[in-house]
Amino acid sequence: MAEKKVAFLGIGSMGAPMARNLLKSGYSVTVFNRSRDRAEKLIADGAVVSDTPAGAVTQGGMVVTMLSNDAALEAVTLGSGGILEKLGKGGVHVSMSTVSPETSRKLASKHAEIGATFVAAPVFGRPDAAAAQKLYICFSGDAEAKERARPVFSVLGQSATDFGNDHGAANVVKLSGNFMILSAVQAMSEALALAEKNGIDRSTLINFFTQANFACPVYQNYGRILADRSYEPAGFKLELGMKDIRLARDTAEAAMVPMPLADLLHARLLESIAKGRAGMDWTAIELATAEDAALR
Amino acid sequence: MAEKKVAFLGIGSMGAPMARNLLKSGYSVTVFNRSRDRAEKLIADGAVVSDTPAGAVTQGGMVVTMLSNDAALEAVTLGSGGILEKLGKGGVHVSMSTVSPETSRKLASKHAEIGATFVAAPVFGRPDAAAAQKLYICFSGDAEAKERARPVFSVLGQSATDFGNDHGAANVVKLSGNFMILSAVQAMSEALALAEKNGIDRSTLINFFTQANFACPVYQNYGRILADRSYEPAGFKLELGMKDIRLARDTAEAAMVPMPLADLLHARLLESIAKGRAGMDWTAIELATAEDAALR
Amino acid sequence: MAEKKVAFLGIGSMGAPMARNLLKSGYSVTVFNRSRDRAEKLIADGAVVSDTPAGAVTQGGMVVTMLSNDAALEAVTLGSGGILEKLGKGGVHVSMSTVSPETSRKLASKHAEIGATFVAAPVFGRPDAAAAQKLYICFSGDAEAKERARPVFSVLGQSATDFGNDHGAANVVKLSGNFMILSAVQAMSEALALAEKNGIDRSTLINFFTQANFACPVYQNYGRILADRSYEPAGFKLELGMKDIRLARDTAEAAMVPMPLADLLHARLLESIAKGRAGMDWTAIELATAEDAALR
Amino acid sequence: MAEKKVAFLGIGSMGAPMARNLLKSGYSVTVFNRSRDRAEKLIADGAVVSDTPAGAVTQGGMVVTMLSNDAALEAVTLGSGGILEKLGKGGVHVSMSTVSPETSRKLASKHAEIGATFVAAPVFGRPDAAAAQKLYICFSGDAEAKERARPVFSVLGQSATDFGNDHGAANVVKLSGNFMILSAVQAMSEALALAEKNGIDRSTLINFFTQANFACPVYQNYGRILADRSYEPAGFKLELGMKDIRLARDTAEAAMVPMPLADLLHARLLESIAKGRAGMDWTAIELATAEDAALR
Repeated sequence: MAEKKVAFLGIGSMGAPMARNLLKSGYSVTVFNRSRDRAEKLIADGAVVSDTPAGAVTQGGMVVTMLSNDAALEAVTLGSGGILEKLGKGGVHVSMSTVSPETSRKLASKHAEIGATFVAAPVFGRPDAAAAQKLYICFSGDAEAKERARPVFSVLGQSATDFGNDHGAANVVKLSGNFMILSAVQAMSEALALAEKNGIDRSTLINFFTQANFACPVYQNYGRILADRSYEPAGFKLELGMKDIRLARDTAEAAMVPMPLADLLHARLLESIAKGRAGMDWTAIELATAEDAALR
Repeated sequence: MAEKKVAFLGIGSMGAPMARNLLKSGYSVTVFNRSRDRAEKLIADGAVVSDTPAGAVTQGGMVVTMLSNDAALEAVTLGSGGILEKLGKGGVHVSMSTVSPETSRKLASKHAEIGATFVAAPVFGRPDAAAAQKLYICFSGDAEAKERARPVFSVLGQSATDFGNDHGAANVVKLSGNFMILSAVQAMSEALALAEKNGIDRSTLINFFTQANFACPVYQNYGRILADRSYEPAGFKLELGMKDIRLARDTAEAAMVPMPLADLLHARLLESIAKGRAGMDWTAIELATAEDAALR
Repeated sequence: MAEKKVAFLGIGSMGAPMARNLLKSGYSVTVFNRSRDRAEKLIADGAVVSDTPAGAVTQGGMVVTMLSNDAALEAVTLGSGGILEKLGKGGVHVSMSTVSPETSRKLASKHAEIGATFVAAPVFGRPDAAAAQKLYICFSGDAEAKERARPVFSVLGQSATDFGNDHGAANVVKLSGNFMILSAVQAMSEALALAEKNGIDRSTLINFFTQANFACPVYQNYGRILADRSYEPAGFKLELGMKDIRLARDTAEAAMVPMPLADLLHARLLESIAKGRAGMDWTAIELATAEDAALR
Repeated sequence: MAEKKVAFLGIGSMGAPMARNLLKSGYSVTVFNRSRDRAEKLIADGAVVSDTPAGAVTQGGMVVTMLSNDAALEAVTLGSGGILEKLGKGGVHVSMSTVSPETSRKLASKHAEIGATFVAAPVFGRPDAAAAQKLYICFSGDAEAKERARPVFSVLGQSATDFGNDHGAANVVKLSGNFMILSAVQAMSEALALAEKNGIDRSTLINFFTQANFACPVYQNYGRILADRSYEPAGFKLELGMKDIRLARDTAEAAMVPMPLADLLHARLLESIAKGRAGMDWTAIELATAEDAALR
């Protein structure tokens, strides 16, 4: 019988709906969040709140983490009062944050030292997709961790794809995906500038493509935002997009893979941040292309 | 009652299935092709073959052109024995080739001089989509021409979107679309190089994304080719992709729109042609990215 | 004895001081300019003014052209009342304009048909260098034309380098040189933006490098303009720089040479023109880099 | 009277001739190098060798460092047996390595805590220029340190320029300079590819420009290497160039300055390393441009 008890660390805009879905599916969930008030919002759904990461973890049990970056994940795992003080032999860590492959590989090795296993399992989808159990999950790591995490994946997402034993592989996939999304945004931005300068309506252009050969969520969702320039409030902040493209570039440098398109995206993000747009939606890199064409 | 008679000029890999679909739908079709033998293959389907463009055209009637480039379209329209020697007042020219907006604007003006009308109506879709009446059509131009062309569009494609009165607008849309497609190819190429260097299987990566947030024809069809590196035989030759990206860049320069991603694609195409890959599928620009990473 | 008679066509900001130097050196010079008033200013220096290109030319003699672009050179050479109506067997055409190698090759062939010879001999240097007989000349073409042009080169410039028999070669050198100059401008622009954001004085930075390992005219002259942002009046207009980079890119495409740095320069020029800077000095591409960094 | 005693840490290909020049000028020099054998070669010139950084330093005296990277400089300064264990109040640290501005700012702050002063003073010039006392020095930092370092600068270089009080400023200048040098290499590489494809001799092209408007050491020295493709043995290893361009990019990201040309150089360096050229001279990035054009 599948285990129905997990610790869930990181109750942010993604983590909250994910933990809630586990609770709804009958899981017993102990939660931890650095700002405790966000964790307490789940009490009504049946969650137990812990003051420390270790306090949420059961020895030999399963812990899911959904944190904002590498530093937060390392602190929660290796720091004082962290996961590894408690998890122990037979424990499983399902790491769903967007972090570098190097961090996953390093943490996996720390888990192995104490007989625990580790699976990297980052997700695609925004908070509404998380709430609707519609995330796309890519995962990689230790066989035992992957096996025990599957029931959790089936609660949280609509698909889960195994990328093998390298603990960093799933992170590479996630970073590649965010790179591909922002590449699509840049391509649409240039097409929109060309169209607008030729007197073509932005929405008509986007509608045409997203009902034709580009009829998929990335183009439909982001295309809509681009056509309307509805960059605030942010669905995914530009400064977080910068973090991910930076991780992609670092990973590419380590692997010796020149990625000129990633460099272009990085330059657009940096320009956007210099211009005070760090808090807008990451699609707002479009404004730089419009400005180059003197459209604004 | 809708007219059921058209001239169809340009019986290539796209034009042939399109003309055949018109014949099947009850149209009386007179065809012309520079190499007459390709036109003659449609005789069995009921087509009449003409020796000249003008010979295929009915005065005041409708002519559809599907030719390989601007020069061919101009020759067939303005040259000796060309369309404009015959089309006359009330005639309609439906130009479905991928050409520059400037060529459409120039030709439209020539049609206006003789009382004929012009609609630019380029299409998205490969020959198999043409055969299946699944093309996506974008069109723009004279109101009368657009009205009279609608029944033809409904035979040839699964959708047709009106981009207004500027005769060049639909060409801008078509060029933007091909630019967006090749941008997607470049994005996938860089992601694949990063993945491959990290030991991730190419097909698993493509399958994951194209069943998730990139589940649309462009990523599915081209992603499959990229994962397998099945660049020969070509579905759409790289040298034709170069023609289209060159037209997009020329249009961008005329409109004063910097398009750094289009520049990147142009450089990849040029490198590919220098390396002898002009006859491969245009997705073969991927090889340049792999070579930069010393993967080949 | 060297011939001391030439026709000089194109009395612009470069042509005027060059023709004047020939007059000072004892040459008998007949001049032509499309706007006759500019030509007439040389009468006081001893020039004879002609109403047509052909009228300035002596049969079997030497004609020097210094015109603004390919179209002007073709018109003056091949048009009605043009050079080739008069030049004849034994005539020599010294073409000093910045034009495409293709134009030189085509014109050389037209000259050969009538027994005349052709040398492409574009120059480096601004009007003040022209006045001071300090131009750097690169030349290529027919042996006889090169031999007969040498005394003219020694009047006009401080050095003249032979690039062989291909009539287009010297034009490739000239376009390469302008590409290298604008590349230096872009490099200094990025360095200045980085420095300025770090609180470093622009002039101190430029002075340091141009008295050290970058102590040469390109960096000293353009560095001074960049440090001061003295983009008006223009020494060389940005729109002319665009013409030259476009020619360089066209030449690169014909030769199948990807030039990503040339693409970057083209994008900066296009952005600058979109922003209304076509009439500024071409170093004003720097403003785009500063704007990307939100420095303005 | 100027102090005539210094500690010199880092006896590599640059540090050795620099320390030797100080000895020749009458300085008493105690040297340290991680591999002691390199330090011992200076004994014949009058140097005293120390086993540790601190052992070479005099309390309140002057120490010059010339090390390979940020980590080495930090270790020698802050590590066990490091400079700060001994330097003390009134001591001066002249840091001549190419490191990040952040490292200089951090180290300056550590010196201030103990009453010592710090000046960043990186240099331009290869080992032969170091031997000939021909280095170009840019420096910035504490007033007292700058004043006391001046006599040392006048021994080591042909010029020294003050960039103010920010300890990181001189490092920004150094990184900008290396960026400008490699930009020049890339510009020459593209020009050479264009020329070669047009049948123009590489050496003739380089000779022309470097005797004309590009007559300065960067173009003359690197142009010669590029024309001959004499990339081995390396004057400055490509992997070290990568380090410096990486530092420039990191500095640009911190300052929010998009540098697309720096991105292009980084991609060329990364491609070169992927292809096994890390040990060649950094001008060998040229090969990537030639390969893109199918010239090799």
